[in-house]
Amino acid sequence: MSAPITSTLSDDEQRVTGEALQGTVVDLIDLSLIAKQAHWNVIGKNFRSVHLALDELVTAAREFTDEAAERATAIGVPPDGRASTVAGQSGAKGIGEGWTSDEDIVNIVVENLAAVIERLRSRVKATEEPDPVTQDLLISITARLEQLHWMWQAQVA
Amino acid sequence: MSAPITSTLSDDEQRVTGEALQGTVVDLIDLSLIAKQAHWNVIGKNFRSVHLALDELVTAAREFTDEAAERATAIGVPPDGRASTVAGQSGAKGIGEGWTSDEDIVNIVVENLAAVIERLRSRVKATEEPDPVTQDLLISITARLEQLHWMWQAQVA
Amino acid sequence: MSAPITSTLSDDEQRVTGEALQGTVVDLIDLSLIAKQAHWNVIGKNFRSVHLALDELVTAAREFTDEAAERATAIGVPPDGRASTVAGQSGAKGIGEGWTSDEDIVNIVVENLAAVIERLRSRVKATEEPDPVTQDLLISITARLEQLHWMWQAQVA
Amino acid sequence: MSAPITSTLSDDEQRVTGEALQGTVVDLIDLSLIAKQAHWNVIGKNFRSVHLALDELVTAAREFTDEAAERATAIGVPPDGRASTVAGQSGAKGIGEGWTSDEDIVNIVVENLAAVIERLRSRVKATEEPDPVTQDLLISITARLEQLHWMWQAQVA
Amino acid sequence: MSAPITSTLSDDEQRVTGEALQGTVVDLIDLSLIAKQAHWNVIGKNFRSVHLALDELVTAAREFTDEAAERATAIGVPPDGRASTVAGQSGAKGIGEGWTSDEDIVNIVVENLAAVIERLRSRVKATEEPDPVTQDLLISITARLEQLHWMWQAQVA
Amino acid sequence: MSAPITSTLSDDEQRVTGEALQGTVVDLIDLSLIAKQAHWNVIGKNFRSVHLALDELVTAAREFTDEAAERATAIGVPPDGRASTVAGQSGAKGIGEGWTSDEDIVNIVVENLAAVIERLRSRVKATEEPDPVTQDLLISITARLEQLHWMWQAQVA
Amino acid sequence: MSAPITSTLSDDEQRVTGEALQGTVVDLIDLSLIAKQAHWNVIGKNFRSVHLALDELVTAAREFTDEAAERATAIGVPPDGRASTVAGQSGAKGIGEGWTSDEDIVNIVVENLAAVIERLRSRVKATEEPDPVTQDLLISITARLEQLHWMWQAQVA
Amino acid sequence: MSAPITSTLSDDEQRVTGEALQGTVVDLIDLSLIAKQAHWNVIGKNFRSVHLALDELVTAAREFTDEAAERATAIGVPPDGRASTVAGQSGAKGIGEGWTSDEDIVNIVVENLAAVIERLRSRVKATEEPDPVTQDLLISITARLEQLHWMWQAQVA
Amino acid sequence: MSAPITSTLSDDEQRVTGEALQGTVVDLIDLSLIAKQAHWNVIGKNFRSVHLALDELVTAAREFTDEAAERATAIGVPPDGRASTVAGQSGAKGIGEGWTSDEDIVNIVVENLAAVIERLRSRVKATEEPDPVTQDLLISITARLEQLHWMWQAQVA
Amino acid sequence: MSAPITSTLSDDEQRVTGEALQGTVVDLIDLSLIAKQAHWNVIGKNFRSVHLALDELVTAAREFTDEAAERATAIGVPPDGRASTVAGQSGAKGIGEGWTSDEDIVNIVVENLAAVIERLRSRVKATEEPDPVTQDLLISITARLEQLHWMWQAQVA
Amino acid sequence: MSAPITSTLSDDEQRVTGEALQGTVVDLIDLSLIAKQAHWNVIGKNFRSVHLALDELVTAAREFTDEAAERATAIGVPPDGRASTVAGQSGAKGIGEGWTSDEDIVNIVVENLAAVIERLRSRVKATEEPDPVTQDLLISITARLEQLHWMWQAQVA
Amino acid sequence: MSAPITSTLSDDEQRVTGEALQGTVVDLIDLSLIAKQAHWNVIGKNFRSVHLALDELVTAAREFTDEAAERATAIGVPPDGRASTVAGQSGAKGIGEGWTSDEDIVNIVVENLAAVIERLRSRVKATEEPDPVTQDLLISITARLEQLHWMWQAQVA
Repeated sequence: MSAPITSTLSDDEQRVTGEALQGTVVDLIDLSLIAKQAHWNVIGKNFRSVHLALDELVTAAREFTDEAAERATAIGVPPDGRASTVAGQSGAKGIGEGWTSDEDIVNIVVENLAAVIERLRSRVKATEEPDPVTQDLLISITARLEQLHWMWQAQVA
Repeated sequence: MSAPITSTLSDDEQRVTGEALQGTVVDLIDLSLIAKQAHWNVIGKNFRSVHLALDELVTAAREFTDEAAERATAIGVPPDGRASTVAGQSGAKGIGEGWTSDEDIVNIVVENLAAVIERLRSRVKATEEPDPVTQDLLISITARLEQLHWMWQAQVA
Repeated sequence: MSAPITSTLSDDEQRVTGEALQGTVVDLIDLSLIAKQAHWNVIGKNFRSVHLALDELVTAAREFTDEAAERATAIGVPPDGRASTVAGQSGAKGIGEGWTSDEDIVNIVVENLAAVIERLRSRVKATEEPDPVTQDLLISITARLEQLHWMWQAQVA
Repeated sequence: MSAPITSTLSDDEQRVTGEALQGTVVDLIDLSLIAKQAHWNVIGKNFRSVHLALDELVTAAREFTDEAAERATAIGVPPDGRASTVAGQSGAKGIGEGWTSDEDIVNIVVENLAAVIERLRSRVKATEEPDPVTQDLLISITARLEQLHWMWQAQVA
Repeated sequence: MSAPITSTLSDDEQRVTGEALQGTVVDLIDLSLIAKQAHWNVIGKNFRSVHLALDELVTAAREFTDEAAERATAIGVPPDGRASTVAGQSGAKGIGEGWTSDEDIVNIVVENLAAVIERLRSRVKATEEPDPVTQDLLISITARLEQLHWMWQAQVA
Repeated sequence: MSAPITSTLSDDEQRVTGEALQGTVVDLIDLSLIAKQAHWNVIGKNFRSVHLALDELVTAAREFTDEAAERATAIGVPPDGRASTVAGQSGAKGIGEGWTSDEDIVNIVVENLAAVIERLRSRVKATEEPDPVTQDLLISITARLEQLHWMWQAQVA
Repeated sequence: MSAPITSTLSDDEQRVTGEALQGTVVDLIDLSLIAKQAHWNVIGKNFRSVHLALDELVTAAREFTDEAAERATAIGVPPDGRASTVAGQSGAKGIGEGWTSDEDIVNIVVENLAAVIERLRSRVKATEEPDPVTQDLLISITARLEQLHWMWQAQVA
Repeated sequence: MSAPITSTLSDDEQRVTGEALQGTVVDLIDLSLIAKQAHWNVIGKNFRSVHLALDELVTAAREFTDEAAERATAIGVPPDGRASTVAGQSGAKGIGEGWTSDEDIVNIVVENLAAVIERLRSRVKATEEPDPVTQDLLISITARLEQLHWMWQAQVA
Repeated sequence: MSAPITSTLSDDEQRVTGEALQGTVVDLIDLSLIAKQAHWNVIGKNFRSVHLALDELVTAAREFTDEAAERATAIGVPPDGRASTVAGQSGAKGIGEGWTSDEDIVNIVVENLAAVIERLRSRVKATEEPDPVTQDLLISITARLEQLHWMWQAQVA
Repeated sequence: MSAPITSTLSDDEQRVTGEALQGTVVDLIDLSLIAKQAHWNVIGKNFRSVHLALDELVTAAREFTDEAAERATAIGVPPDGRASTVAGQSGAKGIGEGWTSDEDIVNIVVENLAAVIERLRSRVKATEEPDPVTQDLLISITARLEQLHWMWQAQVA
Repeated sequence: MSAPITSTLSDDEQRVTGEALQGTVVDLIDLSLIAKQAHWNVIGKNFRSVHLALDELVTAAREFTDEAAERATAIGVPPDGRASTVAGQSGAKGIGEGWTSDEDIVNIVVENLAAVIERLRSRVKATEEPDPVTQDLLISITARLEQLHWMWQAQVA
Repeated sequence: MSAPITSTLSDDEQRVTGEALQGTVVDLIDLSLIAKQAHWNVIGKNFRSVHLALDELVTAAREFTDEAAERATAIGVPPDGRASTVAGQSGAKGIGEGWTSDEDIVNIVVENLAAVIERLRSRVKATEEPDPVTQDLLISITARLEQLHWMWQAQVA
């Protein structure tokens, strides 16, 4: 079965845009898993505050994952968000195992957000010509992640 | 830093219960990723019905993941739900990549649910003695997954 | 068509558990019909209070009916909740026809609840071994009906 | 205790209207039990769609049952909605036991709705003179059941 | 300024329908004031139950007052719901002043409802020919008041 | 494919009722498009008030369109609400193009409502015998449109 | 039956406070009836705006009526809010019958509010000594009515 | 650590106001425990009505406890609401142990409310000069408790 | 009356942007009428699923119609959404009359969406220079319609 | 008056279960009072976070108190939750008076939770044989308190 | 145009009360701008907690601003809340520009609240005679700001 | 302390974007204060309509202020929204003091919106290259303000 979903994009536009979206899907799934991992393993004086803020990050990451994946389907590209794909292709920095202090968690989140944002910034540029509709979605994801990046970075400032 | 979170369980009770919960966390995260993958890649006459039902499965899997992981923390065991851990340890059957017919999706979901349920059933038995509180949680997860298993199997009956 | 829905239970476990659930479905449907009958036919000084309390009982009975019936399907046993089955197999005490005083209604409800609770208690014991998942459901039904039994009995105390 | 609830209707008007309402109560309770039975026992490709649509039918049948029964009380006639009364007097067509294919379920629902609607149509005529208030209720029940009848029949068209 | 609001009704139809609606407006305002008076002055064992039920009556009376008055405007007849008009033209039975026992309150409500319902019944007949749209409204008011009449009468049964 | 949806109405009853409903569907769609057109093009001191009131009219027209169209399907008549059908068969008065003063808008709405109400009144009479269920729906549409007619006419009074 | 409800107030305090509350109850009921009368009979360019604002006034008047009346009961004084009492004792200015222009309505509302506020101001003073609890309620009623007075007066400014 | 929270009140004003608030906190906690005790142990014909009304009392007592305690903190006085403090200092009348008839419960509630209200009345006077802000809070607590006192006393009238 | 609403756009920018928005308004109104037509006339096994999905399409089309039309007003161009304009200028493919199978409906929706999306894509390009604010709106409409296009196309894949 | 509420438990089962529930009621009331005391008296950098978290603990303790007390009534044992009983029988560790630093509060909460959990664990064992329905409730209380114990302990880790 | 809004206050009462309200409006607007400034510029470990608490302060300040300003209009005094007026007349302490540590922010908020509260306290006294209605509003503003003052001061205790 | 919040923008991009956002924050705060000033001081026949519409403008201005200020923080630029900054740097036209007629208010709002929109338009252009994420936010602010500009201008058309 080939190309059951069609699009008005040219093959090239579809390829470039599809890669940008697939990369975004993988990064965001990983970000949500890292944030959940942190949500469970954080300890320290600011436990409650960090624990709650992490779930806001999870919610954002999950909603954008769905939007990016469904944008891929809309241009005829089947997204891949399976565990092994995420483990192999994610551009996030990751997180260690076991109990982790709240201060370390804040730094880990800042680093992971920075890595994902940087990749999103280059995808915003890459999709401007081939598909402004996709670009618009990537801009709104970037906007929200940069807002979260500020909020987490403010804690180590 | 060792054992920052204490519990009334003996070391042995904690070990057995912790393994049951860690295994459940991994299986459920994988189940949620598989269901999302199916949610995006399903095609066919029953697309809409299957697409919607998969999100109910995702919701259930995510909520139980959180409950199982936080039960692990409550008995002093740090849960591990990172992408690579899930990719390496999950007991679910998995799903292939690319567009997939609704009929195939139904079969894939039934198989994955069956595999996860079977492991849960053995964990219900394993935790009865060491920690009835954890057993109670595993029973309620099993109950809901068996209900979903019926609903998906009913579609191939 | 035979056994379209499969289960991890052995034949024996399935038979015992299925009978417990089928009996519960029938008792609860009857209880909901009796409570509605009372809801419409009650008269007397405490009309309003009794009228309202009966609808809480109806709601509880209906929700548990659905849970018990869908638990039966989940273990591969098709439930039977048809009018004639209920009329023939219910273990509830029933209610007479026509206008009935609020005092009589309270006694009728207490008796019917007591009869249904007693049968549930024995099913809780019967399902402990074959299916702790079903037992857990029967325990929660019993808990709620015993709470309602207290509330109704308190009115004749 | 005789006639505790009075009405402005003459004895004859009360008798005709009371019979129409009692018949409606019985038919609608049976319809709700049949729909629940179908809700639990349906299997097949369209399981989810049919399963959900049946609960809308249950909701409609239950709400109208209550309105019809309380209209009976309002004109001084005590309604009878007990299991044995329903089993003995219902004008619905009924449903068999056990797992049933989605296609059969659709046909069973269409037939049962058609039978109940036909009886309602004759009651709309019968109550026009004796009690236009009751007629108005029966008209609104008929309107909704005919809408549902179309929706179910559309599936076999 | 004469007849600023026009209608498709003939002068005669307008006059008959307008009188039916004006009478209904007055009766319902009085009913709401009587019910509030009772709501404040009731004492006795069933205080709470009666106190709450009276506010349901107030709510019903107020909503129907608005519907009847706005139906009058819709057919070009300005409604009159001023205190002196209500005091002078109401067909309700009224209520005495000061603290009143719950048993007396129940009887007072039953009598007032009966008086208002009887007048509504004759207006339902009177408006059938001139304006079925208004008749339909009066039927729904009658239906609700007769339901409330049953509920209050049931308390003295 | 012929007559996939059946009805208890005779051919003649179905024809008369079907025409009444089809005419109502067309009139109401046109009314909703006219009201939206006015909603966007109104200017003048009362802009805000008129702008908001027009959306209430749109909401009413849309809901009744759906009820009328689905009543047609329920009696086995397929409704036709396509743009060209509406443009060709509507009984509404219409509206000019471009910016329009609030005073003119009020007059335009009053005229359009009056035209639609007059046609509804004759359909209420026409359907009384063949189908009282449909008549009941047309009565409730008339009631609401006459209420809106008063509210708009009150602004020019 | 005398004085079934007791209070910590002296006889004199109770009398003065009771009169202030009874007067307030009567004024507010009349205000709500006047506002409803205006709500139905207003015509003119500002119909919609005035029509809506009048219902806010009705809501305020009704809620304060209930609070004032229940404060009277709380100090052992049975309130009297019957139509004839309102017609005989109200200190509001009243309203004429029939269609009334929006400009006249605004003036009528301003006058009625001014009259009621003036009486409330003197009751605030009268109750300061005997019962500060009642005074506090009267102050909050005055605050809201003075706010509404400004809003209505602003329309004639 | 001394006086970490400052206030604009003089030492004397702070002492008087602080005592009034501390006494109120203790009385209200005891009132909430008494009402819960009654909520569980009441039996008799009016069980349901009394059972529900007691929870409204609990809710009121709990909310006012929090407001009084946080007002104490706002003026720099640390409140004390521990079980032994409540047991030792409460001015409420208390309640016996075990099942208690609904009639006795009503009397117990009336007596406890009366005792608490009397103490509140004297605190309203005591705080007028030192802190009108605190007085305003005590007035609103008194107003609500006197309303509840009427509602409970009305049941024994 | 000419140009009562002003804009910062040049005449040329206004003309190009206005045409893009007017074309979008017409296409979307037609899409909503086509989807409603399909909603009523669809028959077949997937009736329920298709019937529900069509109302999601109607909702989307109506909301975007309003946004596009109000964007036109914001740049000083009066939109035209009258039935005859829609019938004459729409770029959608349309739909036939009478009962239509669910499979045909799916194809009809896919074709109509494709036609509307193609026109939107060219308007996104056309408005980039003259008015990026309007372009942003057209991009979000395109994004949603392309998502719906995928969902409908997935059903024929 | 003896044993007005009956149960299916034997005298011995009732005694053991009743003691477990009565002890739980007392511990949980004390826990809620301690948490409120801490909520008001906490000071320090983490004031806001701790202040908010304490109210979640209060909510949990209050809800479980009610469930445990009503479970006691359901098995025929009248619960005792009066201030003096709580002061005398509680197994919680208690809290000192006056302003307390956030760090001390966290330790106090951890200790009190640990003490209450330990007693609950032994009651879970004690009730397994005599009443699995009560055991199920105690398990769910334990599960939630152990979750809270982790969250508070994490702050000192 | 002079004095379009009238009041029952004497000129002197109006002047004193008007000044108190105008001063309050200015202080509260400034407080809301200071809190927003802090909300954006705070950095440090407690960022999230402080960031959130500041928005609660903004909400309180904005709501009280509106109430104070509308109370001024109600007594015939036009309030002035323009930026330059606020910049020139505010009694708050203000805040510096740029990133600010969380500890500094807490101190800044405590100081600003203290300054505004002190001015409110004197206005409460000043308005007691001329207008108790306004005094009541100022008391409730003071109560809430003193509660917030405690909460912020508790963080530096 | 310098640059605690980092960004992926170059210094130049950060400076240009930061200035655009700071200017927007100031303009929007001023707009919200002007709209509130108008909300309180408007008088005239259209008082209510204008009064309500002004609060919609306040809500929009406040929400966009927050988004713009938090976008500034996200790119590492601390926003300045203090009263003196707003008074000194705002590009809005301002509003006079004292009671103002509704007609004047409409003109004042139109002028202020026009001034703010013009500045936003140039910022949309200025940020296109340095930061498309910020540009996207400025576009959505412009879109909403231009919609409001139309609505206010329509009132003077």
